[in-house]
Amino acid sequence: NHTESVVSAESIPGKSDLKFLRKIVDIIIKEGLIGAMDREERVCEFLQPEDLKAKLKELKINREPSSEDQLTEICKDVIKYSVKTTNPRFFNQLFGGMDQYTLSGAWITEALNSSQYTYEVAPVFTLMEKEVYSKMLGLIGFDGGDAIFVPGGSMGNLYGMNLARYTKFPEIKTKGLYCLDKPLCMFTSEKGHYSIKKSAGMMGLGTENIFPVKTDKLGKMMPEDLRNKINIAKGEGYEPYFVNATAGTTVLGAYDPLSDIADVCKEYNLWLHVDGAWGGSAAVSQKYKYLMNGIEKADSMTWNPHKMMGVPLQCSMFLTKHKDVLQDCHCANARYLFQQDKNYDVSYDTGDKSLQCGRKVDVLKFWMLWKGKGDDGMERDIDHLFMLSRYLANKLKQTAGFRLIQEPECTNVCFWYIPPSLREQEENKEWWDKVAKVAPQIKARMMECGSMMIGYNPDGDLVNFFRMVQSNFDTTTADMDFLVTEIDRLGKDL
Amino acid sequence: NHTESVVSAESIPGKSDLKFLRKIVDIIIKEGLIGAMDREERVCEFLQPEDLKAKLKELKINREPSSEDQLTEICKDVIKYSVKTTNPRFFNQLFGGMDQYTLSGAWITEALNSSQYTYEVAPVFTLMEKEVYSKMLGLIGFDGGDAIFVPGGSMGNLYGMNLARYTKFPEIKTKGLYCLDKPLCMFTSEKGHYSIKKSAGMMGLGTENIFPVKTDKLGKMMPEDLRNKINIAKGEGYEPYFVNATAGTTVLGAYDPLSDIADVCKEYNLWLHVDGAWGGSAAVSQKYKYLMNGIEKADSMTWNPHKMMGVPLQCSMFLTKHKDVLQDCHCANARYLFQQDKNYDVSYDTGDKSLQCGRKVDVLKFWMLWKGKGDDGMERDIDHLFMLSRYLANKLKQTAGFRLIQEPECTNVCFWYIPPSLREQEENKEWWDKVAKVAPQIKARMMECGSMMIGYNPDGDLVNFFRMVQSNFDTTTADMDFLVTEIDRLGKDL
Ligand SMILES: Cc1ncc(COP(=O)(O)O)c(C=O)c1O
Ligand SMILES: Cc1ncc(COP(=O)(O)O)c(C=O)c1O
Repeated sequence: NHTESVVSAESIPGKSDLKFLRKIVDIIIKEGLIGAMDREERVCEFLQPEDLKAKLKELKINREPSSEDQLTEICKDVIKYSVKTTNPRFFNQLFGGMDQYTLSGAWITEALNSSQYTYEVAPVFTLMEKEVYSKMLGLIGFDGGDAIFVPGGSMGNLYGMNLARYTKFPEIKTKGLYCLDKPLCMFTSEKGHYSIKKSAGMMGLGTENIFPVKTDKLGKMMPEDLRNKINIAKGEGYEPYFVNATAGTTVLGAYDPLSDIADVCKEYNLWLHVDGAWGGSAAVSQKYKYLMNGIEKADSMTWNPHKMMGVPLQCSMFLTKHKDVLQDCHCANARYLFQQDKNYDVSYDTGDKSLQCGRKVDVLKFWMLWKGKGDDGMERDIDHLFMLSRYLANKLKQTAGFRLIQEPECTNVCFWYIPPSLREQEENKEWWDKVAKVAPQIKARMMECGSMMIGYNPDGDLVNFFRMVQSNFDTTTADMDFLVTEIDRLGKDL
Repeated sequence: NHTESVVSAESIPGKSDLKFLRKIVDIIIKEGLIGAMDREERVCEFLQPEDLKAKLKELKINREPSSEDQLTEICKDVIKYSVKTTNPRFFNQLFGGMDQYTLSGAWITEALNSSQYTYEVAPVFTLMEKEVYSKMLGLIGFDGGDAIFVPGGSMGNLYGMNLARYTKFPEIKTKGLYCLDKPLCMFTSEKGHYSIKKSAGMMGLGTENIFPVKTDKLGKMMPEDLRNKINIAKGEGYEPYFVNATAGTTVLGAYDPLSDIADVCKEYNLWLHVDGAWGGSAAVSQKYKYLMNGIEKADSMTWNPHKMMGVPLQCSMFLTKHKDVLQDCHCANARYLFQQDKNYDVSYDTGDKSLQCGRKVDVLKFWMLWKGKGDDGMERDIDHLFMLSRYLANKLKQTAGFRLIQEPECTNVCFWYIPPSLREQEENKEWWDKVAKVAPQIKARMMECGSMMIGYNPDGDLVNFFRMVQSNFDTTTADMDFLVTEIDRLGKDL
């Protein structure tokens, strides 16, 4: 019988007082926030996967429900064994930190649970997006353009590649790449983010049809080599269509020379996309926006507030100077969602501009933060991050055993630590092989004691080095002093 | 001077007590949750965009910071004017409802702010994903396969199309579609979700190279017509490679006959992807899983816990039976993130399986819900939703002025309301034109009074009808009775 009358499933009791939720909030505030953000506490409680599995024996979901007491214990363990990305000594990724304005926005978002496709179901957030979009478009000289939140900077870059292709060859959307005489090709620097490669694979363009453009010794794309590669590509029978420049590369933090690159793109009629996922936030700063000179000549940009603007994941934006291309390129006109006979102006429905259908509300937490700080506060905080990196670079230059790879442009500071046993020796192949093993060992020790977290990697010919990045507004110069002392403490016997 | 010593930006004070956050929590609990979930309260407070803009005068972000009192007022307004998707009378989209287990998980996630790419930075969540993946893979007979969270079902469908293509023609990833002799083509039913179209456009496959397969009068894809279309495509020189079947179509809620479709796919060596974004949750139910008979013969599936499993957006999963394809198809081997010399077994790093780089943690809120309820509770709740739809369908058949379009399969119940002025008349073209205008008018009135929200749309030859969908576990049969009375009240003078 399919229709027996059940008054309510009310599968999880307690809707009237939400006592469990209140209890968890107290735990989050005490352990997940105030505790986690305390620099005297451990940044991580590292366990090998098998050991962690043994600790979290309750991971398995059973036939029977779990009691609220069990769930409470689990929540405590989740917090305990998770990495404290909000700690001012977490430097492992291109995000970090937390504040109560943005978190309030995030928690409201989760509680209201909406989807950003129509004004009908997300009226407030639709208007809020408009405000944020127009502000950001203005900052990069894209006034009158269009923008949309995307689930990550990688998706933003994908949007750039897709809109560029649509603009040059709109028929590809309907007919496929088969309608072309020549294969398309793309250009990005050797130091560009791997999302360009992932997108090229998925868009049917082929990863091998990306021409890597050479970078100078600071990691900046060389406009002369771009021109050179475009000519080579044309000579090989390719149809160039897209250039990706980076404002703040992932590892070295280099800003490509946008203005010169834009001039090359203009000459060859190529779409210029700027991947500012990481360093795009410099646009907010009077002091550092010069790093992005020429951005106003680009066609589109990726910009991640979830990296250097202190907003929790995910909060990424794709922006374009061209007004209608997002809509034209992505629309599918689904009648069940974008009815044209609604009781309001349906141009407020933004869903058809997206490749997504349901789209999480990412705007409120960002808007709360920015509104709460004002432009002045946002600018001051971003300047603070840049300042910290300059401070650290200077410090490293003055400290025995540290070797700076280059002066920072973005907030990245890349450096080697040379333990005493390796100092003042001939720097031959064997020596570099030994240096390459230093960072992973220090990192492993750092994870054991949980004092801080910082990433390392090789890059091109450069063997493993530390990549220090700033994105937590609470980090101080004292934390930079600590970092230097701590790496030396962990590594001096190596 | 770039290195002046600033002790701390501490741009937003109050880290030590988080008083502002606590105040907002109280408001969320009172107004955003207990109030919002109360069926006696309004589901929406509809205002035309211009009027809402006038109410929310504080939307503009200024140079100066806003005071905490201002922010508090804004948070109240955000809640007040947002649609209450958690109310048991919100039926407008394929999601709705809220409970304190899942919300606790969501709030912890936001407070801890991590990214799901490496075990290093997300140890607990990585293990939790493994548990959830293997459970879901087991439920659909994909044991030993692989899975990954994606930002929405549309992306899940995109992953299916991409993995299918990679499996048949791995060289497309590197060389692009240019390496093929014949154009690829895809098959999906006329009633399939539009994300297949969006993906085909973006993947360079071309929306016109999708062959729409006919559906029977219940909206189910016809295996004979699939075979027919495959043969036509081959005759036209296409290379067929991908079939999308739907488990729970968006509008009618039809389940395509998976077993028969799988047999056709096997015969022609085509990848079968099942879009179970909406109806896939039937796999949890002993009573309803028969609707998906044959799913174990498919190659991949999309499944959205953010729709029928009560998890807030976004929570979507892509699952495949094939163990290594996600990794092989999507990997880019970025050295800065997926270092191979880390101090743990790096096969726990899942990031390179994704098209994303940073990936929001979507697992905890889902795991908390499922763990808290147990399998039994999850099954009971999903059965409850199916039961409600059967109850409503029966009720509509017995109530004057309502006309059911078809018996429900998934939880969708589609129907027309015929106001008294149109009853017992000749059902000619003019009559249907009049019926088409009924649903939008009732909807507009419904939004004005905020008593409930339900969607409407045309479909094929069928003029505008109401699409009732169940996804809120707190909705009851009494709410179904209310719905019928309310539509009649709002529409009887039309
Ligand atoms: C059948 C079907 N597939 C896919 C989707 C897309 O899911 P999402 O909104 O999570 O992208 C939907 C959304 O309604 C759907 O109904
Ligand atoms: C330069 C650059 N672009 C794009 C991305 C990708 O952004 P997301 O992780 O949000 O996908 C990153 C991530 O680190 C990046 O550094």
